[in-house]
Amino acid sequence: MGGGGGRSDLARAVMRGDRRAASRLLSFLEDRDPRGRAPYRALYRRSGRAHLVGVTGPPGSGKSTLVDALTRRFRSDGRKVAIVAVDPTSPFTGGAILGDRVRMSDHTLDPGVVIRSMASRGSMGGIAPATYQAAVVFDAMGFDTVVIETVGTGQLETDIIRCAATVVVVTMPGTGDEVQVAKAGLFEIGDIFVVNKADREGADAIRREIESMLALGAHAPPAGWRPPVLSTVASQGEGVDALHAAVEGHLRHLKASGLHREGEVSRARHIILQELVEAARERAHGALAGPWGERLVRDVAGRRRDAASAARLLAKRL
Amino acid sequence: MGGGGGRSDLARAVMRGDRRAASRLLSFLEDRDPRGRAPYRALYRRSGRAHLVGVTGPPGSGKSTLVDALTRRFRSDGRKVAIVAVDPTSPFTGGAILGDRVRMSDHTLDPGVVIRSMASRGSMGGIAPATYQAAVVFDAMGFDTVVIETVGTGQLETDIIRCAATVVVVTMPGTGDEVQVAKAGLFEIGDIFVVNKADREGADAIRREIESMLALGAHAPPAGWRPPVLSTVASQGEGVDALHAAVEGHLRHLKASGLHREGEVSRARHIILQELVEAARERAHGALAGPWGERLVRDVAGRRRDAASAARLLAKRL
Repeated sequence: MGGGGGRSDLARAVMRGDRRAASRLLSFLEDRDPRGRAPYRALYRRSGRAHLVGVTGPPGSGKSTLVDALTRRFRSDGRKVAIVAVDPTSPFTGGAILGDRVRMSDHTLDPGVVIRSMASRGSMGGIAPATYQAAVVFDAMGFDTVVIETVGTGQLETDIIRCAATVVVVTMPGTGDEVQVAKAGLFEIGDIFVVNKADREGADAIRREIESMLALGAHAPPAGWRPPVLSTVASQGEGVDALHAAVEGHLRHLKASGLHREGEVSRARHIILQELVEAARERAHGALAGPWGERLVRDVAGRRRDAASAARLLAKRL
Repeated sequence: MGGGGGRSDLARAVMRGDRRAASRLLSFLEDRDPRGRAPYRALYRRSGRAHLVGVTGPPGSGKSTLVDALTRRFRSDGRKVAIVAVDPTSPFTGGAILGDRVRMSDHTLDPGVVIRSMASRGSMGGIAPATYQAAVVFDAMGFDTVVIETVGTGQLETDIIRCAATVVVVTMPGTGDEVQVAKAGLFEIGDIFVVNKADREGADAIRREIESMLALGAHAPPAGWRPPVLSTVASQGEGVDALHAAVEGHLRHLKASGLHREGEVSRARHIILQELVEAARERAHGALAGPWGERLVRDVAGRRRDAASAARLLAKRL
């Protein structure tokens, strides 16, 4: 907040649109480096204007291509777009095996587009809060739309995508994806469903399946919103205008119905919980590394104490 | 622990092998019902003899069929087998779309086999600790092998599978699964790799790919253990003997090298952290539901306070 020093300089630089400063801040936030705290607080207060759009679905469904096409569509309206892409890759294989982001290179010279790939945090968690923080930073920088793109359909993706105001769930024909989507609980959180690669065999079948699952009440719809099931061929740009219209329509619906404000409150609750859990994990990890913690761990390993009661002791000590 | 009352009766009934009592206890543990605590503590102290085998991999790789075949192989040696199957299904679609467990019905009359499907806990988490607790209960009941089977390759699966002494990672040809396996960080935690459905085209290719990734150091191997890459056709029983031998061989290796004890310590640390995080999440969730918490949430939603500092306030209050 107020006062001099490098930290508020960093916040000011980010607000001016300095991408290098933004990149530095995002690294602090990903690493949970305390130097990121004050600038983030300042930026958070300036955020809340961007439309956060989550795009998720099983690997191979063509999410990146779709996000790419959607970004181009937003740019044609002059809207500035930030993309936060989450690839929970392993620390060993890194991003090397994922060429996803290579295609986006035609945006790299466009000052109205910024792309941030979130690195894996390994088993320590923390990627969900860091993803949201990146979205907030781009929001405060003045990007109109922040797309949060996640690969996969697990609990982590659900956690990440919950901070978006509009959630687009992408599937493709012929992979049993509807089952994966159901398993991941994405039916409940999807506001718009897309069958991508819709020129392939089985597109109508999966589309009907999603529609009937939605009709069966798999979806807990916000009042007055009936999630559309769209077909796209992202690589050809087909269906992208309709998707764009649905995304914009959903935002209008949220604002007109007052659901946007409600959503902000429920997202705030979700993010506070994420932050708390992450902080508790970090502090507990530190405490278990000391001599007292080591003894506690050995007691549990030796079956002299169970983990739940050890966790209660540990919580008291923290 | 000691003393009379229904709780220690429950523990005693479970130790006697009463499956209905075990089922009741497992429901308490899944629901985090306090009535489960004392019986669990008593059972935990009696546990530690079973071999915990984790089986994970992408959906469709045939894990259930493989676990089924492996179970039959263990039974032919007279070993008692418990299977804890985690299907993180949505609360809406439930287990209805997953017919996975139907095939296991030929075991249902065998008193040497028990199967427990873990229900989804939704976004509240908690499934990882509950899965481990189920394994502990079966361990204390005298089952020799407890197989923990998870569908998927996300962070949740990695969290769940980390409590196993031996981790089997299953893939299949032609789905780009090696990428999913890498993304999920399963290369680091796999002790045995299986290419199932190995009669399909592309089996050799994926096998070589896994081998070369392992050779490239994607794996952080415990001293002296080189993870084998096996081929199976589980539906035909092919390769199951070799898998069985590898699982047994890995346990022998762990015990002979002293790694088993080390593993117990690192698993204990992991489970304590899980329990602590889960308890923190629950308590925070409760606190946020009260008037003080509601105000805090609205402050964050209104951008008057950021989530991280709200989480710090909340932690102080808890």
